[in-house]
Amino acid sequence: VTVSSLSERDLIARIRARLPAAPRWLLVGVGDDAAVVEAERNRVEVLTVDAIVEGVHFDRAFVPPEAIGRRAVAVNLSDLAAMGAAPRLALLSLVLPPQLRLDDFDAIVEGAATVAAEHRLHIVGGNLTRSPGPLMIDVTVVGTVKRRQALTRSGARAGDELYVSGSIGGAAAGLCVLKQSPPPSTTSAVVDRYLRPTPRVRLGMLLSRNRAANACMDLSDGLGDAVHQICEASGVGATIDAAALPIDAETRRVFEALGADPIDAAVAGGDDYELIVAASPKRRRRLAAAERHGGAPLTKIGVCTADRAVLVKTPDGGAAPLPRAGFSHFGPS
Amino acid sequence: VTVSSLSERDLIARIRARLPAAPRWLLVGVGDDAAVVEAERNRVEVLTVDAIVEGVHFDRAFVPPEAIGRRAVAVNLSDLAAMGAAPRLALLSLVLPPQLRLDDFDAIVEGAATVAAEHRLHIVGGNLTRSPGPLMIDVTVVGTVKRRQALTRSGARAGDELYVSGSIGGAAAGLCVLKQSPPPSTTSAVVDRYLRPTPRVRLGMLLSRNRAANACMDLSDGLGDAVHQICEASGVGATIDAAALPIDAETRRVFEALGADPIDAAVAGGDDYELIVAASPKRRRRLAAAERHGGAPLTKIGVCTADRAVLVKTPDGGAAPLPRAGFSHFGPS
Repeated sequence: VTVSSLSERDLIARIRARLPAAPRWLLVGVGDDAAVVEAERNRVEVLTVDAIVEGVHFDRAFVPPEAIGRRAVAVNLSDLAAMGAAPRLALLSLVLPPQLRLDDFDAIVEGAATVAAEHRLHIVGGNLTRSPGPLMIDVTVVGTVKRRQALTRSGARAGDELYVSGSIGGAAAGLCVLKQSPPPSTTSAVVDRYLRPTPRVRLGMLLSRNRAANACMDLSDGLGDAVHQICEASGVGATIDAAALPIDAETRRVFEALGADPIDAAVAGGDDYELIVAASPKRRRRLAAAERHGGAPLTKIGVCTADRAVLVKTPDGGAAPLPRAGFSHFGPS
Repeated sequence: VTVSSLSERDLIARIRARLPAAPRWLLVGVGDDAAVVEAERNRVEVLTVDAIVEGVHFDRAFVPPEAIGRRAVAVNLSDLAAMGAAPRLALLSLVLPPQLRLDDFDAIVEGAATVAAEHRLHIVGGNLTRSPGPLMIDVTVVGTVKRRQALTRSGARAGDELYVSGSIGGAAAGLCVLKQSPPPSTTSAVVDRYLRPTPRVRLGMLLSRNRAANACMDLSDGLGDAVHQICEASGVGATIDAAALPIDAETRRVFEALGADPIDAAVAGGDDYELIVAASPKRRRRLAAAERHGGAPLTKIGVCTADRAVLVKTPDGGAAPLPRAGFSHFGPS
């Protein structure tokens, strides 16, 4: 059975059936021309949209439909986390090839609804359309944050320390494992990192609340890209200590087995959805407090500099430009 | 030159260059992980998302890129109009085949930015991704309305009169004209109806403000579909007077030349983006006031009935079920 054998109305009914009870602030939900919601008092709103496209952001050959649904929502939650915002609502725009199997559709919805519920994100509406092209899920999320507590990319200052949450390169290593032929018979931690990224929502909220960070963004396009972006937006440079980068043992093993340098590969690898944070050394205690309850360790990986060069200190004592690399959606970045 | 020869950053810069100055309530705009905005006081928020896909909602063979951009935003403004909401902000998610020409990209952005500016809708963010598949534009819009003044589909009561704004069938007729081979050498009003739909934003806002309407929705999927949807959501039936339907002379001519019954074709035709309104006969003066300043005539086309049948009175005095027809995104509707 494919989605083309059901009406739009029936597909919407299947989504509604999977959603929890509407929150009180949702005045008109799924089923009208638009959703109507009450704004949250004394908070500003944080809005973002991100699409994942089959053949560009995921391959259905090795990403199960439930993981596709999870990822579509998780990448957007990661953007909210990067702003320090509390998740509030989402709109799901599903662009479906008519031959998509109905049980795959259900699994995509299940994955999206599950990760949304985990982060108190309410799906309040969306859109369904068929397409002759690839499966695509475009998700809009709205979160809230206290005014003046939104974390941006542009607040880093010379002397700030740079931290990264969790570990890096794991998702890229997981993707390498999944692409192996024949595919691996056992699951591994890095594969899970790729398939089911954990947005650092709680950590971002805590960093925002206790004003620990001067700047923050997520690593969707890799650490190299993120360091460059923060530096450009803030008008600073940075020196990253390659030896300090949190790269776990399995990730190193996967990259080494492929003949790749683990540091280069981890710096270039996207899809980690960790946070990079610039914080004044005076705020170390606040940072530690956020880390304690944020669900992920923070590792110091370098410092921001007045000199605008973005460098990486290599273990042999040298310094080289930090490669930007990372995922480029279009041409040269 | 195609979009694939530019970086994502350069494409974003081209979009930013086309946008007007940021409104005061926009605290963080295009360029960070997410947009940050102040909520409007004493208003509730209306949110909707709608995608248009090449090969499903438009054909690039006869829809110029500027019209594609306009349409992507206009169909969303129409949803806000149907709720009686004032447009506020939009997020633009562009899914681009790499071989899209850069001047077509610019024209799409120009069309979107122009129709947004016409309706005081501010583009505050978005997403760009490449895709191996069709060109797609997914737009999320947020509007505001006074609490309890949002127009829904579900408020129609037996005895309410049904009105439609402007005229119907024009966009469907225009599409027929555009599909002719060879294509027509002169433009016509119906072609313009198809290519550049006018969302009834002002009319919707006025109907909401003076509480003239019990129910409202837009005709994106055709009048037949809309009447059925309002009736189902409101728990009423309706009798439509076929002779009263506002179908202009050019639309009739186009359908007749194709051997189609103009009334059937106009009832089934989508893409008009007019509003259908259910209003108590006691509210006729309010309705007339909204019509006077709303930019489009309102024509009475029938009444809501306690009996749940949805009928059309034919000119010969008979009555038949109103065809639902209209555009179905998936299977049978």
